[in-house]
Amino acid sequence: MINIAIMGYGVVGSGVAEVCRMNADTIRKKAGRGINIKKILDLRDFPDDPFGDRVTHRAGDIFEDPDIAIVVETIGGTGIALDLSLQALRSGKHVVTSNKELVAAHGPELMALAQQMGVSYMYEASVGGGIPIVRPLHKCLSANVIQTVAGILNGTTNYILTRMDAAGIRFDQALAEAQAKGYAEQNPTADLDGLDACRKLAILGSITLGEYIDSRKVHTEGITSIMPTDLLYAQHLQMKLKLIGRFRLLPDRRADMIVAPMLISRSHPIAVADDVNNAILVEGNALGEALFYGRGAGKLPTASAVVADVIECAMHLGRLPHLTTWAVSDRPIVRPHDECPVQALVRLHDRLPPDQIRALFGPHGAELIEAQDLHEQAWLVGQGAPLSEGQLAARLRMLDADVIGRIRLFV
Amino acid sequence: MINIAIMGYGVVGSGVAEVCRMNADTIRKKAGRGINIKKILDLRDFPDDPFGDRVTHRAGDIFEDPDIAIVVETIGGTGIALDLSLQALRSGKHVVTSNKELVAAHGPELMALAQQMGVSYMYEASVGGGIPIVRPLHKCLSANVIQTVAGILNGTTNYILTRMDAAGIRFDQALAEAQAKGYAEQNPTADLDGLDACRKLAILGSITLGEYIDSRKVHTEGITSIMPTDLLYAQHLQMKLKLIGRFRLLPDRRADMIVAPMLISRSHPIAVADDVNNAILVEGNALGEALFYGRGAGKLPTASAVVADVIECAMHLGRLPHLTTWAVSDRPIVRPHDECPVQALVRLHDRLPPDQIRALFGPHGAELIEAQDLHEQAWLVGQGAPLSEGQLAARLRMLDADVIGRIRLFV
Repeated sequence: MINIAIMGYGVVGSGVAEVCRMNADTIRKKAGRGINIKKILDLRDFPDDPFGDRVTHRAGDIFEDPDIAIVVETIGGTGIALDLSLQALRSGKHVVTSNKELVAAHGPELMALAQQMGVSYMYEASVGGGIPIVRPLHKCLSANVIQTVAGILNGTTNYILTRMDAAGIRFDQALAEAQAKGYAEQNPTADLDGLDACRKLAILGSITLGEYIDSRKVHTEGITSIMPTDLLYAQHLQMKLKLIGRFRLLPDRRADMIVAPMLISRSHPIAVADDVNNAILVEGNALGEALFYGRGAGKLPTASAVVADVIECAMHLGRLPHLTTWAVSDRPIVRPHDECPVQALVRLHDRLPPDQIRALFGPHGAELIEAQDLHEQAWLVGQGAPLSEGQLAARLRMLDADVIGRIRLFV
Repeated sequence: MINIAIMGYGVVGSGVAEVCRMNADTIRKKAGRGINIKKILDLRDFPDDPFGDRVTHRAGDIFEDPDIAIVVETIGGTGIALDLSLQALRSGKHVVTSNKELVAAHGPELMALAQQMGVSYMYEASVGGGIPIVRPLHKCLSANVIQTVAGILNGTTNYILTRMDAAGIRFDQALAEAQAKGYAEQNPTADLDGLDACRKLAILGSITLGEYIDSRKVHTEGITSIMPTDLLYAQHLQMKLKLIGRFRLLPDRRADMIVAPMLISRSHPIAVADDVNNAILVEGNALGEALFYGRGAGKLPTASAVVADVIECAMHLGRLPHLTTWAVSDRPIVRPHDECPVQALVRLHDRLPPDQIRALFGPHGAELIEAQDLHEQAWLVGQGAPLSEGQLAARLRMLDADVIGRIRLFV
């Protein structure tokens, strides 16, 4: 029997307890011993919970208990969660987390401390919910130079875009539906603005490079200004509109990174992910492309990824210190956004002569999209001619008031 | 620097050497030291190969060399590959294999010996080529009771079915095309008859249960009798026709297992895999569904999975003995085929009154499919009423000469 503690008994934390109870036999078999939840740290009490008697309000009850080997952090955020994670590691406990915000903001510090203390800091659940992606990137694909990591990393926004596409409803209507179903938080800003996807992309990029990528350096756009008409164009083009995060390794070991709504072919493997599902494509120089797909969030899927990390720790107690850290350097890893190549669908008010557009983007740089009944012009730009984000932005500024909006193509 | 040996310098074996050379920097970083190919065992010589000077024809040069810690087995088959794998393990070497036939036939013996010798026997590359699936099942999904493993496990047959679907060509034409492109071997029987997929399914099922499943117990049908008309029905039904292997856990810990061509909805995640790609769906009781997709075969993808296992061994030399073995028991794990539930598309010569079909399968047990210009009748049977494989077979026997063929539905 191995004793663990859970810090933060919210959705994921209580899910961890539920998975441990529900699958106790399977877990005992895999870990070689049973897992006992000895303490739960939370500000609240849970008198009706089956684990309610383990609740403590004092963190020291965990850190000072030599019988507790593994601590699960499911508090979230970068405040108290950081303090308690550092304390847990300093106390010689393995730490397992689902907290992507913390890993994205303080990963290097936490991993370095874990290595120094001879314990593990594990974060499979921080990306892709229950979908295995962190460990596969570390282990299974370790013989590859990873060239691309791209995909749908946020379930809330994917649900909203799927509903706007399928039901033809507006963004605010789809958001209300997502909230009613529990797929969006009451304050969904981090999801809608792309921040959540951006943190996950930065974590995946950091694993890929073995170097810390600050998520704040990644150009990030959310989905709040997506209009039903955008979805109509997507359908017209046999495409779907998805919030996609993309990491692309450059020959000089810098990377193109972006999180933004993009049009993607309906037959592309990433586009298989609708509703709250995630899909992450990894391209390696030996492997070619592989895709990981599934429920990217939710109580039990995320909890099952946390418990898998706990099992890994339990199997290797004292033998498997944290092995990989992210180097922190001053070199600029993320290529400046303005220099990145781009193709986009540009929607214009219906009053510009095609000649003017072609003059702006070159004779082969723009292609008119004929969509019936939409009472406007739309162009695919950067098609024939390479165009950078900076060039696109400059040319759209010249069109100024005529531009309704633009959406990138995933290419 | 860690020394390894490669036994069998064919497609995958030489791919292992190529990946080690091509990605030497990445591998050194991940493994914590460089990997040196010290010996290559093969009957042939390779004077023009960059590693030609490492070739030996004497296995003892590997087993008796205390500097070689890890041995890669890429010989294939169950003859000499078994002997040499056992000898390597007995000599205290870690063994990494891509040989699904060997793992499916002798996994328990090899794993037990590895455990006894305190070394690892690793086989990520035996299923799904470069797609991570063995380790994710073992590790990442370890907190789940796995209820279903299903998917497209063979690239050759998937290429043939994709071409028959897209180009409307016959089986033999598509096979010739696959052979011309190097996607099918000159003797492709094990692929076409479903044996290769069956072995992979048995390996995945064995991992899931922690018990050895003899692949010979799994009902297996190949694709050699698939007709272009079958593909036309698939298109008519908005489905694809795929060779699917499926493991389903039953409440009594037995399993329904089958490999057969099946009709699957075009929007199902598994159906995303066309051409030589594989797609494997795993359903866990906490996770829900997750899908693993990518190149299921090929020199470099498969080799990259072998090298990933080598890296794992190299990272944990002396610290990570083989931990999971497959128990061998007399209990009948695979439910008798006749008892498994089934739904199928049944094609009949156009001369049976619908009443007769409904009388046979019950009023809600069969649904007529109207397909223009196909000059025959087709029915979906087992739709409304539960039907076992045994019942379906018996009723089709009563129709006898009127039956052109039947294809299962993936449900």
